[in-house]
Amino acid sequence: MTKVTGTCDLLITHVHIATMDPSMGTGHYGELLEGAIAIDQGLIQWLGAAEALPANLQPKATLDGQGQWLMPGLIDCHTHLVYAGDRSTEFEQRLQGKSYSDIAQQGGGILSTVNATRRCSLDQLIEQSRPRLEALLCDGVTTLEIKSGYGLNLETELKILRAAKELELQYPVRIEKTFLGAHTLPPEFSGQADRYIEVVCEEMLPAIAEEGLATAVDVFCENIAFNLSHTEKVFQSARSLGLRVKLHAEQLSDSRGTQLATAYDALSVDHLEYLSNEGVKALENSTTVATLLPGAFYFLQETQRPPVEKLRASGIPMALATDLNPGTSPFTSLRLIMNMACTLFGLTPSEALAGVTIHAARALGLQDQEGMIKKGHTANLTLWPIQSPASLAASLTGETPSLTFYRGEARVN
Amino acid sequence: MTKVTGTCDLLITHVHIATMDPSMGTGHYGELLEGAIAIDQGLIQWLGAAEALPANLQPKATLDGQGQWLMPGLIDCHTHLVYAGDRSTEFEQRLQGKSYSDIAQQGGGILSTVNATRRCSLDQLIEQSRPRLEALLCDGVTTLEIKSGYGLNLETELKILRAAKELELQYPVRIEKTFLGAHTLPPEFSGQADRYIEVVCEEMLPAIAEEGLATAVDVFCENIAFNLSHTEKVFQSARSLGLRVKLHAEQLSDSRGTQLATAYDALSVDHLEYLSNEGVKALENSTTVATLLPGAFYFLQETQRPPVEKLRASGIPMALATDLNPGTSPFTSLRLIMNMACTLFGLTPSEALAGVTIHAARALGLQDQEGMIKKGHTANLTLWPIQSPASLAASLTGETPSLTFYRGEARVN
Ligand SMILES: [Zn+2]
Ligand SMILES: [Zn+2]
Repeated sequence: MTKVTGTCDLLITHVHIATMDPSMGTGHYGELLEGAIAIDQGLIQWLGAAEALPANLQPKATLDGQGQWLMPGLIDCHTHLVYAGDRSTEFEQRLQGKSYSDIAQQGGGILSTVNATRRCSLDQLIEQSRPRLEALLCDGVTTLEIKSGYGLNLETELKILRAAKELELQYPVRIEKTFLGAHTLPPEFSGQADRYIEVVCEEMLPAIAEEGLATAVDVFCENIAFNLSHTEKVFQSARSLGLRVKLHAEQLSDSRGTQLATAYDALSVDHLEYLSNEGVKALENSTTVATLLPGAFYFLQETQRPPVEKLRASGIPMALATDLNPGTSPFTSLRLIMNMACTLFGLTPSEALAGVTIHAARALGLQDQEGMIKKGHTANLTLWPIQSPASLAASLTGETPSLTFYRGEARVN
Repeated sequence: MTKVTGTCDLLITHVHIATMDPSMGTGHYGELLEGAIAIDQGLIQWLGAAEALPANLQPKATLDGQGQWLMPGLIDCHTHLVYAGDRSTEFEQRLQGKSYSDIAQQGGGILSTVNATRRCSLDQLIEQSRPRLEALLCDGVTTLEIKSGYGLNLETELKILRAAKELELQYPVRIEKTFLGAHTLPPEFSGQADRYIEVVCEEMLPAIAEEGLATAVDVFCENIAFNLSHTEKVFQSARSLGLRVKLHAEQLSDSRGTQLATAYDALSVDHLEYLSNEGVKALENSTTVATLLPGAFYFLQETQRPPVEKLRASGIPMALATDLNPGTSPFTSLRLIMNMACTLFGLTPSEALAGVTIHAARALGLQDQEGMIKKGHTANLTLWPIQSPASLAASLTGETPSLTFYRGEARVN
């Protein structure tokens, strides 16, 4: 850490700071009113009340925030952003009264995305994914997760993760990559889930780990996807390769995936509409984050809400994410997701903001670097022309960040 | 009408056209695949299949649409876009468990918006409204309605409508202005609703009509606002001044406002969650549009849906709008509203698109000029890089119009 003497790259003054740091400031957002912040070499060097600014600090540049609110950069900790094709006509067919099975028989559903993703080139995949990433960035996102899972063979899973890697090089954003080979059973393994999981564990996972293309491994544990025993096999392989795990769990039923995931020190368990009391207890005794995905809940018009009151009472960190995907959560606005978390799940605006900052950082294992405005953390920041930090969740009325800082560098939307 | 000989200002080729004209093309969108369209003097001069293009047409400019979809400009036929202040902390207080009455006692609720709007200058009001208008335009909106109703005294109602007029001068968009003095009872008339309605009819309405600041008059007819008799008084005054009427009707209860509104040839009745069979019948025998506002339904977490199946079966045109307002529908994306109409109310994507084009035009009395891609209509058009017109309602995944044409002039977002 740079000491607060001599220079810093940038000093921002005249801002209200929502630090999201429970040990700082006041109120639910860790607020520092009339604050200032010094950035040096991409890190937060100092923050505090304007009048406490070290007298000897010599900034290379200064920025007057004009009373706007400074927040951490937003973090979307669960997306399936890289895919090809379009499922809009499937949405239309459902609303015209066609059944899911009719649509699947006509080649619709998740396998239509798999087919389109397999067919297209790496460049096409990047081009198709670009507007989705750009839309997320417009909302002030500085870090996101992208999962594979629309390849279901080594070649295409690699292509998806390479596309994610290439997008990270092209945009001022951090992208955490997750291997989700166990997303759904590919048609060529129909009736052979055990065999496919072997391929995932013995062929795909080692190749992806060797290329350093993923930092975590995910499984869709559900009665329509993979069971607990499949999940554990993938977790064991991930662990043997030094990769963290996470899980799509208890979305449509209670598969007890959460209990298994916490036993493997999962980064997060995601969805959780059917989480049991036992699952809550398992989370309470773990470091695993509960990630809520209200976009899918809304889009599928589910009626069972995740047990937010119990999670809150147990002090379990709740992250929020878009779950951006073409079939069940076609949404690229993390702020819309924050609003849905409040409106549909009863989170408060400060819980929603914590869900896309401090807790989302933890869900990606980045809690020591991101998610709070804190000395020593990466200077990923957003400056908003709003009157209260509650606005981010409360109103989708055209507010965008005046500035976003990624590793201390300002970008204008 | 210009004849198709000689010149035109612009020829657009290589587009698929969703005309939304029931007498044109095929399918639910009135599709013309591989179409072309000629624009002259701000109007649509010709459209048809590319191979039917008149040989003698000499365009001054041509544009290759590269296979994208051309749609009518979107129309938001119900907004309260011009207001001051911020209600985010009120949203936060509700989620922290405060009751509506507690919030109202602390000066929250609609009257807080009235106070903020009364206090600010015309220029401040325009500045605060600007980001909301710009956000609507980003989605391809070329026409919108703005209601007054946060003034509740002549001076401030005039200020709101003048702000709307000024915004129309500053942006490439048509703004239809509606006087909604009968929005809620102002505090200075507490307990004197009859007296306030007299002021609305005898002082405010004539002054606004004289300045030509509104083309229509609206009332909030509901047990928490004004009753049928108040509503009829306002409708009578509006009629005597040559202004059209519309109504906030049957949102929280069945007040039989729809039956009254159709008797006064209302442009539209809006909300309609509690519309009765009798109300449906009244609409069937009228030219009044049924405007659905799913944003407010979602935000207030209502459970009774408007009778969409009955409206559909009776062939009643259903428009959709944002209802953009700070207290119950803080949303500036008409495409989000289209998605909500499908997801929450069961509209099909083509019904949703009709709701923000052809039927929204009718809800503003503009059906002879806007809402369809039709010879002689205003050339308000949007060009979308999407594979199917269903995408507009199905996926909020970063697609924006490549180009929007307002009266034949291209604007880039
Ligand atoms: Zn997911
Ligand atoms: Zn309204």
